[in-house]
Amino acid sequence: MDERYVDGRVEKIWSLKNKLELWQKTELAFIAAMVFYGLAKSIVFFKIEKIWKSMPINLKWFKERDKKIHHDLNAFLEERVRHLPRWLQKFVHKWITSFDTEEPAFARMLIDSIAVVSAEYEKLEVQLCKMAKKFMFAIMMARTHGQYAELQTQGKRYLTWITELKEAKRQLKESMQMLEYSKIKGAIGNYGEIDPQLEKKALEILGFKPFAGATQIMPRILYAPIAASLCGMVVVIDSIATDIRLGARSGIKIYDEPFKKFQKGSSAMPGKKNTIRTEQMEGMARMALGYLEAIMLNIRTWEERAIEQSCVERVVWPDLFHVTVHSLKVMTGVINKMKIYPDNMLKEIHESRGLYASAEAKEFLKTKGSKYGLSAEEGYRIIQLAAFIANEPDPERLGIRNTLPCSLAEADELFEKFKTLPSEKIVSIQELIPRANLYSLPDKLAASKTQVQKWNKVLKKIFARPKNIEEWNILFQPSHLLKNEAILYEKIIGA
Amino acid sequence: MDERYVDGRVEKIWSLKNKLELWQKTELAFIAAMVFYGLAKSIVFFKIEKIWKSMPINLKWFKERDKKIHHDLNAFLEERVRHLPRWLQKFVHKWITSFDTEEPAFARMLIDSIAVVSAEYEKLEVQLCKMAKKFMFAIMMARTHGQYAELQTQGKRYLTWITELKEAKRQLKESMQMLEYSKIKGAIGNYGEIDPQLEKKALEILGFKPFAGATQIMPRILYAPIAASLCGMVVVIDSIATDIRLGARSGIKIYDEPFKKFQKGSSAMPGKKNTIRTEQMEGMARMALGYLEAIMLNIRTWEERAIEQSCVERVVWPDLFHVTVHSLKVMTGVINKMKIYPDNMLKEIHESRGLYASAEAKEFLKTKGSKYGLSAEEGYRIIQLAAFIANEPDPERLGIRNTLPCSLAEADELFEKFKTLPSEKIVSIQELIPRANLYSLPDKLAASKTQVQKWNKVLKKIFARPKNIEEWNILFQPSHLLKNEAILYEKIIGA
Amino acid sequence: MDERYVDGRVEKIWSLKNKLELWQKTELAFIAAMVFYGLAKSIVFFKIEKIWKSMPINLKWFKERDKKIHHDLNAFLEERVRHLPRWLQKFVHKWITSFDTEEPAFARMLIDSIAVVSAEYEKLEVQLCKMAKKFMFAIMMARTHGQYAELQTQGKRYLTWITELKEAKRQLKESMQMLEYSKIKGAIGNYGEIDPQLEKKALEILGFKPFAGATQIMPRILYAPIAASLCGMVVVIDSIATDIRLGARSGIKIYDEPFKKFQKGSSAMPGKKNTIRTEQMEGMARMALGYLEAIMLNIRTWEERAIEQSCVERVVWPDLFHVTVHSLKVMTGVINKMKIYPDNMLKEIHESRGLYASAEAKEFLKTKGSKYGLSAEEGYRIIQLAAFIANEPDPERLGIRNTLPCSLAEADELFEKFKTLPSEKIVSIQELIPRANLYSLPDKLAASKTQVQKWNKVLKKIFARPKNIEEWNILFQPSHLLKNEAILYEKIIGA
Amino acid sequence: MDERYVDGRVEKIWSLKNKLELWQKTELAFIAAMVFYGLAKSIVFFKIEKIWKSMPINLKWFKERDKKIHHDLNAFLEERVRHLPRWLQKFVHKWITSFDTEEPAFARMLIDSIAVVSAEYEKLEVQLCKMAKKFMFAIMMARTHGQYAELQTQGKRYLTWITELKEAKRQLKESMQMLEYSKIKGAIGNYGEIDPQLEKKALEILGFKPFAGATQIMPRILYAPIAASLCGMVVVIDSIATDIRLGARSGIKIYDEPFKKFQKGSSAMPGKKNTIRTEQMEGMARMALGYLEAIMLNIRTWEERAIEQSCVERVVWPDLFHVTVHSLKVMTGVINKMKIYPDNMLKEIHESRGLYASAEAKEFLKTKGSKYGLSAEEGYRIIQLAAFIANEPDPERLGIRNTLPCSLAEADELFEKFKTLPSEKIVSIQELIPRANLYSLPDKLAASKTQVQKWNKVLKKIFARPKNIEEWNILFQPSHLLKNEAILYEKIIGA
Repeated sequence: MDERYVDGRVEKIWSLKNKLELWQKTELAFIAAMVFYGLAKSIVFFKIEKIWKSMPINLKWFKERDKKIHHDLNAFLEERVRHLPRWLQKFVHKWITSFDTEEPAFARMLIDSIAVVSAEYEKLEVQLCKMAKKFMFAIMMARTHGQYAELQTQGKRYLTWITELKEAKRQLKESMQMLEYSKIKGAIGNYGEIDPQLEKKALEILGFKPFAGATQIMPRILYAPIAASLCGMVVVIDSIATDIRLGARSGIKIYDEPFKKFQKGSSAMPGKKNTIRTEQMEGMARMALGYLEAIMLNIRTWEERAIEQSCVERVVWPDLFHVTVHSLKVMTGVINKMKIYPDNMLKEIHESRGLYASAEAKEFLKTKGSKYGLSAEEGYRIIQLAAFIANEPDPERLGIRNTLPCSLAEADELFEKFKTLPSEKIVSIQELIPRANLYSLPDKLAASKTQVQKWNKVLKKIFARPKNIEEWNILFQPSHLLKNEAILYEKIIGA
Repeated sequence: MDERYVDGRVEKIWSLKNKLELWQKTELAFIAAMVFYGLAKSIVFFKIEKIWKSMPINLKWFKERDKKIHHDLNAFLEERVRHLPRWLQKFVHKWITSFDTEEPAFARMLIDSIAVVSAEYEKLEVQLCKMAKKFMFAIMMARTHGQYAELQTQGKRYLTWITELKEAKRQLKESMQMLEYSKIKGAIGNYGEIDPQLEKKALEILGFKPFAGATQIMPRILYAPIAASLCGMVVVIDSIATDIRLGARSGIKIYDEPFKKFQKGSSAMPGKKNTIRTEQMEGMARMALGYLEAIMLNIRTWEERAIEQSCVERVVWPDLFHVTVHSLKVMTGVINKMKIYPDNMLKEIHESRGLYASAEAKEFLKTKGSKYGLSAEEGYRIIQLAAFIANEPDPERLGIRNTLPCSLAEADELFEKFKTLPSEKIVSIQELIPRANLYSLPDKLAASKTQVQKWNKVLKKIFARPKNIEEWNILFQPSHLLKNEAILYEKIIGA
Repeated sequence: MDERYVDGRVEKIWSLKNKLELWQKTELAFIAAMVFYGLAKSIVFFKIEKIWKSMPINLKWFKERDKKIHHDLNAFLEERVRHLPRWLQKFVHKWITSFDTEEPAFARMLIDSIAVVSAEYEKLEVQLCKMAKKFMFAIMMARTHGQYAELQTQGKRYLTWITELKEAKRQLKESMQMLEYSKIKGAIGNYGEIDPQLEKKALEILGFKPFAGATQIMPRILYAPIAASLCGMVVVIDSIATDIRLGARSGIKIYDEPFKKFQKGSSAMPGKKNTIRTEQMEGMARMALGYLEAIMLNIRTWEERAIEQSCVERVVWPDLFHVTVHSLKVMTGVINKMKIYPDNMLKEIHESRGLYASAEAKEFLKTKGSKYGLSAEEGYRIIQLAAFIANEPDPERLGIRNTLPCSLAEADELFEKFKTLPSEKIVSIQELIPRANLYSLPDKLAASKTQVQKWNKVLKKIFARPKNIEEWNILFQPSHLLKNEAILYEKIIGA
Repeated sequence: MDERYVDGRVEKIWSLKNKLELWQKTELAFIAAMVFYGLAKSIVFFKIEKIWKSMPINLKWFKERDKKIHHDLNAFLEERVRHLPRWLQKFVHKWITSFDTEEPAFARMLIDSIAVVSAEYEKLEVQLCKMAKKFMFAIMMARTHGQYAELQTQGKRYLTWITELKEAKRQLKESMQMLEYSKIKGAIGNYGEIDPQLEKKALEILGFKPFAGATQIMPRILYAPIAASLCGMVVVIDSIATDIRLGARSGIKIYDEPFKKFQKGSSAMPGKKNTIRTEQMEGMARMALGYLEAIMLNIRTWEERAIEQSCVERVVWPDLFHVTVHSLKVMTGVINKMKIYPDNMLKEIHESRGLYASAEAKEFLKTKGSKYGLSAEEGYRIIQLAAFIANEPDPERLGIRNTLPCSLAEADELFEKFKTLPSEKIVSIQELIPRANLYSLPDKLAASKTQVQKWNKVLKKIFARPKNIEEWNILFQPSHLLKNEAILYEKIIGA
């Protein structure tokens, strides 16, 4: 893993030093269990423990030995046993096999790494909740398919982000269930000379329960959901990051990634403020997806085990944790210092030309219009037509739209011309429809002149009634449209 | 999905017909909720329900309409609404959006498909338990790294298979937790005109609870674990299948896939009995892994939703269920009629030359030898040397081993010569070690002549004591070695 | 594959009927080769060919037989042989094995499917070239990181799309190299009784050359690049589709997906025009990525072959071709009828506040400023500061930006207030910098007041010279900035 | 990447130091190009080059700066520019953008890494060719579906391994085609102020040609095939490794991984020789598949680029190269020192009971039998029946096969009984069929007594003719069966 994305805690957990110390813990726990059941005297345990604690594992010696005998656990044992007097040696690793020593250590490394993830996750959730509360009444356009949809508050978007993250976190927590178990069951998992009580006691000391049904190793299907949920979490972060990138696009920005005072956005273009942190999240997700694939493939082995899984676990687990923790940290930083532009949020609502209430407007026409012979389908089509009309450009802009320059010089001219245009006027369907003078747009909607005339007549009738106008205008009030949102704040963040 | 791998039930669940019927159920439930809360009269519900039940959805009409308007849910609504009198039309799909209708249907399809998986899973578990009990005392060589390891019973191998499958099943069950929820929350998930009570009631009718935090759609992170656990199940099946393929290899077969009386194994070679069913399981796993990737990618969308996920879900979910169900069915068939060869299992034990007890033998030497100055390391190396000696070929075979033919004619001769050799003699370390005449194999083990002489002396001393010989021989008794296995049967299948 | 995404030609190629007919072709070719080398009389070939052509393969008979004997190629042979008199039977499938028959058929199916892809690809390329030429002088903002970057023409964006697609196509063509080969080499690939001349002749008839190094099957590594390049093509299409989605977002739209006159965008919100076709492309890419994974896994087999690959190839190859062809077809439709808004493209340039020339402006200051003691770094920072100043909102908007409403009622008010604001004034760095009255923005850029004062002095000096002003203004002319673009049109589409 | 799997050369190529040095090369090449075209004086180039060469890049300074400004290329430029007098500063990175500097460096890193792969590949191919020649006449059973198939030489298996590897290598070479190109085209790829001649010249100096159609970056589709072919190579290595694992399984071993004299196979079981190196290859393949996925996802970006791809490329490319190079190195070591057991290869042939010639025997019966009224189908079924009969165990073994022990004590007894059995007799279909006393096996093959009697009669007639017996026996001679194999040696390795 590139040092930029490394988390110090995760690195320590998966370090050789930590792993060997955890192996030593297993060995000591098993000797303690033997003592507990009278298979060795207490002195055996205390002597060994004392000697080992006074002689830290020599990693250099270990590595050289490992290279020679091609078996890391044996190299570890040799390194440890060499410090013991001969009479104590036979108590070490008695009856048990390499993966009896390694499995509790491996499970511990997973547990500890998940704890780091959880701690970073909490920070992100806190930031998001803070933002959700802060922007509880700051209104904005929701978007589906990238298009203006209905109104929502900015806080509500955080609520949906929180929801997805919480679900990823829930899945991660669920995925830990099987980390309560481990095994000290001998070479093929049926105990051999190991009294099952010994396993139980030793695992208890290490904080685990025995898992029936292991072979030489714990079945790797147990750990697959951990990778799946970590990957899911990173993909969710990427999804949130993508939303931020979308809202931060030049044009009408509703938010911006933090940009530091010394930061440079581009080596060529000094004005750039790029969304580099959120874009990186997509790269993180790509890696996480690849790592998940490797872990899923790791489920399979031959018979009572082969060692295909080992190199993958040395590499991919720490990398997946680094990627996850890094993503959480970056995202927390982004959310914490993100810039929000409520003025632009209002600008978008304004420029949506009242479409933010199109669903309600449609239901209004369907209800009010039915007595004048309007079908449900027609109610729908009237709003659609009004929306298209409201979005038609003014004639000058339409002229430019329909002029294709045939040289760069012509392009220069057209641009100069554009710069002199007066501002665009925004008309909303809120005003447009009560005027009852819709006209057909034969290229855009299959509605004939006659049909549109009929619609105008009905509209005239509907809006002749002042009460209807009043009702109609209420439909376009943000506070009306958002009246039910409070329940979401309450359910999701208790606000 | 190729028709060979299609499950009829899964196909029906994901059929267009079923989907549209489920959509209709949502629409009716929402109208029923409106009636419940006084927003429509009961007659509205009963009329609509009656008309719809009497007029099955016309799929042809629907498809043509969908092609025209490019929106399947609207096409469905138009198909349904056209049968209603105008005054009833406005009650249909009132306030709600397409995915309010679709989400409960989609969740139902997942639930129903998982029920098919569960039913097939149960059959496989039953078969495996039956086999585990049947072969509870049939001993065989366990293998790690493809090499002879220690003794186990054939039944115990089934236990480990059952364990992995059960874990996959547990994960599948866990993954269903979020299928209790769905949404009818409007276009962007903040209710708009929909009273939250209406959602609650309508979902209750459909068997769901409201999910806070949805946008236009339910977040796809909710469904990712379902795909991960289905994929995990198929990979576990492939892992079991691989074990069967390994045990069924020509040479010493310990089991065989069922082979029918009319079956042909090869178009060229009539004697072949190929493991085609179990091999297919690896193909199934390859597909499942690819499908998982697509579903994981499906987690991400833009803002309040875009529709990237839709085509994937139309294709990949049914395909993943077909693959899972097919794998379970094939595997149940294989386990049910598998041939087992206990004689060959014994042959393997015999040919292991006593190595099945090498761990115990090593502990014996470590314990008994320490008083004669043998280190733990030396105890290990003595067994290793004896194992290598026991596996040396006899001189005739060694001669052949070291003769490389230089033409096909020489190859013919060598083969003829081989055919005349007497049978190989099998010597076990059980006999070899007490003889105390080990010799050094300088090419194979770094133990000098002097060292080996010392070892022989110690061995002589140890085995001079009849009690030690007696203890030694007990180590090689299967019943001694398997004394703790019963606990696994009890814990895993209650036998 | 869901019928929505099925291509009729691909479906036919991978149909059972076509496969069996191709198998028959192999069998006939091998008999013809025997005749050619005098191993059978011509009458043998002509009789068999005549009988087979007069008796089409009975698929129902075949399927039933296959179910009974569990071997599809044997079932096919039995179906074919039953129509022959006994004396002809022995010439059929003589010496050869199932995959001798199947491999040339499989390669043919790949070749034919790629031909469909290529045909659809050409249509898309034609559309894109047409658009590139049409919009050769229509200027727009290029975007990096979603942010306004420099100027380009709309046509140039098509050029980059064309480039990526052409590369995908080139890779696909390269990937076909090994489809020139096939094998008829017997059960394990070393000919057995088959004279190598027979293989050569039979393959020649079928349009192939012999591949040395096959086992029972052709090694699957040969076909992996085909899947990789198809997947690459779909991901490229998705990348193009994403660009369209981005440009079609509500706000300032520069293009829109085609929207038909009868189309409906949403069941709830009638005004919606959603980018559903381009979004679907992302789903297609997700599937293609999953299919690639399965095909990559398919490379591995055991020894002289096992049949893990078969089910994957039945399912995934046609699905991958369907997905690719569908994506090409949809995209061609989108490009063909896409709406382009050159007025909005100019609007974006205008609203970029001159930043489209920031790189050139920076070089200008670096060059002109060095004599007044400006470092390269300072040249950079001046432009950065000017850009930030130009993007500051006016006081009214800033007021709104900094007001967080504390209730929905306040949100209503703020929105009403916003609607009354006069239009925003756009100031460009083109005017701003020569004015030489930049001011420090301590929160946004680490440049002190003193520093900015110094910069203003230098700017004053530079812009005191009319020649510099002239040069400066030229930098902001589109025709100046795009002067080198023509070379791209020429190299990429010869325009 | 874990240090166990790191290749020093790959590590160096992807080191920060090397990357920054390559960036410097691009910057210098561009200045040289400016000099070449008279846009700067020669002194500019020589001064800058001299200063930079005398002042190695200070990595610590760089890293701190990068952390501050969040832009590594700008940090690099600042580090370099600070050593220059002011008048030279403006010539550095003039007109160009970060990825103009970075892309040629990146392509160079890919090229250099592939060179390492190629060098290691050659070593492996050499080893394999050596082995192929050495075992050109050492006969063995080929296996399809894990089952004995026909005869081949051990050398021929190497030929098929070589073929797959060569194909992977060919694909890798093909994938390099686009590495001839790079870009120095400015911020969005349309040159801006950069004269296209400058790009051409600078790239020429760096060893590249200009790529039309780049945006800010080279399109990532160009590099996808490199990852696909590296991944393909690792999967092929895994496939070969799997073959070795299969042949090295305890039982009848035909080869063994090298095992060193100090090596330990297991911490518990001293006799173990595990296939740990070849098993690791499967882990490597799992990682490579995951890395490919990330690189495929990297193809997509937004518009003229976003930076999602960057972190993936920092991490995944070096990791993928490490995995590939490590796999090649391990495999070369394995092949180089692998142990081969020709005696066991003959044992397998012998124990196949003549089935190695079953295809030829079937054709013999079809041809000779047709005049006695035997159909092609019957020829097939006779061999099938004979094969099943030859594989029936003797009565003692059958007794044991059908006895299921009901306790561990009974298991002990059965094992003791088995150990006393005389050796199994091997009967071949070569002898069995001419005896013409086949009998029906109603449970195994659907052939009635009457039918079998008829078959025996025909067999009697056929084998009454001495010439037929002679012909028959020739079919079972290895030299006869392998007569066409030489052509493969010639075509594949020119032997």
